[in-house]
Amino acid sequence: MEVLNDLLDYQGLKIYQDTEMFSFSLDSVLLANFVTLNKNIKKVLDIGSGNAVIPMILSTKTKANITGIEIQEKSFNLGDKSIKYNKLEDKITFINSDIKEYKENCSQEVFDVITCNPPYFKVVKTSNLNKNDYKTIARHEIKLNLSELFKIASYLLKNKGNIAIVHRPERLIEIIEEMKKNRIEPKRIQLIYPGKDKEANILLIEGVKNGNPGLKILQPLYSHENNEYTNEIKKYFKG
Amino acid sequence: MEVLNDLLDYQGLKIYQDTEMFSFSLDSVLLANFVTLNKNIKKVLDIGSGNAVIPMILSTKTKANITGIEIQEKSFNLGDKSIKYNKLEDKITFINSDIKEYKENCSQEVFDVITCNPPYFKVVKTSNLNKNDYKTIARHEIKLNLSELFKIASYLLKNKGNIAIVHRPERLIEIIEEMKKNRIEPKRIQLIYPGKDKEANILLIEGVKNGNPGLKILQPLYSHENNEYTNEIKKYFKG
Repeated sequence: MEVLNDLLDYQGLKIYQDTEMFSFSLDSVLLANFVTLNKNIKKVLDIGSGNAVIPMILSTKTKANITGIEIQEKSFNLGDKSIKYNKLEDKITFINSDIKEYKENCSQEVFDVITCNPPYFKVVKTSNLNKNDYKTIARHEIKLNLSELFKIASYLLKNKGNIAIVHRPERLIEIIEEMKKNRIEPKRIQLIYPGKDKEANILLIEGVKNGNPGLKILQPLYSHENNEYTNEIKKYFKG
Repeated sequence: MEVLNDLLDYQGLKIYQDTEMFSFSLDSVLLANFVTLNKNIKKVLDIGSGNAVIPMILSTKTKANITGIEIQEKSFNLGDKSIKYNKLEDKITFINSDIKEYKENCSQEVFDVITCNPPYFKVVKTSNLNKNDYKTIARHEIKLNLSELFKIASYLLKNKGNIAIVHRPERLIEIIEEMKKNRIEPKRIQLIYPGKDKEANILLIEGVKNGNPGLKILQPLYSHENNEYTNEIKKYFKG
């Protein structure tokens, strides 16, 4: 069922969602608030935008032109409707495409910033997956894996441009390896813990193309307390 | 000036220190409490033991034989005195040597666990250092750098043996690269923050030789509150 929800408190934005598909997640909201957006940036790319939640939040935070890419038609259509409903067509270019094809038609070193909330799970031989299923494609690395993501990002990023992604902490080592292989130097990490004395369950990481070594690990965030979002998380819902 | 201090509350242990040299640090105490010590381990190696604080704390936590190596004679002598004072000669073998020489005379794959609180700072061309100074050797990578450390550790560790080190978060990326190069898979990370809303300033990381990928990031620790150690840190002082 298609519904029109408030996009949190971001300047009165509304977002179309489908209750049978994914709703936008805390992960995307955290990423859109984590990424470094300098004043001088001109072009931002969000890879795998789903129903366009990240491009829409970013539109409240930067004057840069934002491009969102989504491979799946159903979520693309929802995002497209939301962008029009919010009259954001001039700020956000939303494209229904595979990022791999998009890259083939795009020149090198054109974006200042890239964001991505990619599929979290590896496809292993024993995964008995329906590879056409909407949720499977959003969750598993069927259309895009980490290695491909950073290769594409490195191609599209300007020198000293930055890419920020959200992922699971258990894959941090691979993420760092793939960034380094593609000359993206990890510069900032932030970890989100579901509660006190619990292991981190969300990883935010940002790298700079051809950046110098030297990492900062920002203050930790706690997402929940007494089965509710904490105040520090609710703050992000206010935009 | 040489003094005899309590080694925190670790089973009444005492430790010799020299007020003009380094005193043992929070970092070493955290590392000795972080490293995984399974029941079946037989041999533990601490590289760069200073005045033997890590071997002495470990002796309260494992029945394994512990070897400590310290290159600098002055701190070796303090550690040696402390080990004898505490009657730990049967549990701790303390050696005044360069780990590089020690490794040459040691067979491969003999240790279950390695710990190390290494020098934190790179030597760069512009570093105007007195390379014979006690503190310079303890703080800067003059005698041992990360690349050498993990190469030696990988040689000395048994298959599936673990190495835990304490370091600065800004060097996490290099640490991971050097571990991976030497077939040590990073498995556990813990970050210590000096206070709320501050960046991490101490990194604990453990890897397993020939381990499978999959990282856990443990709950964060805060070291200070109102210019005092927090209760969670004081807990480590109790052994």
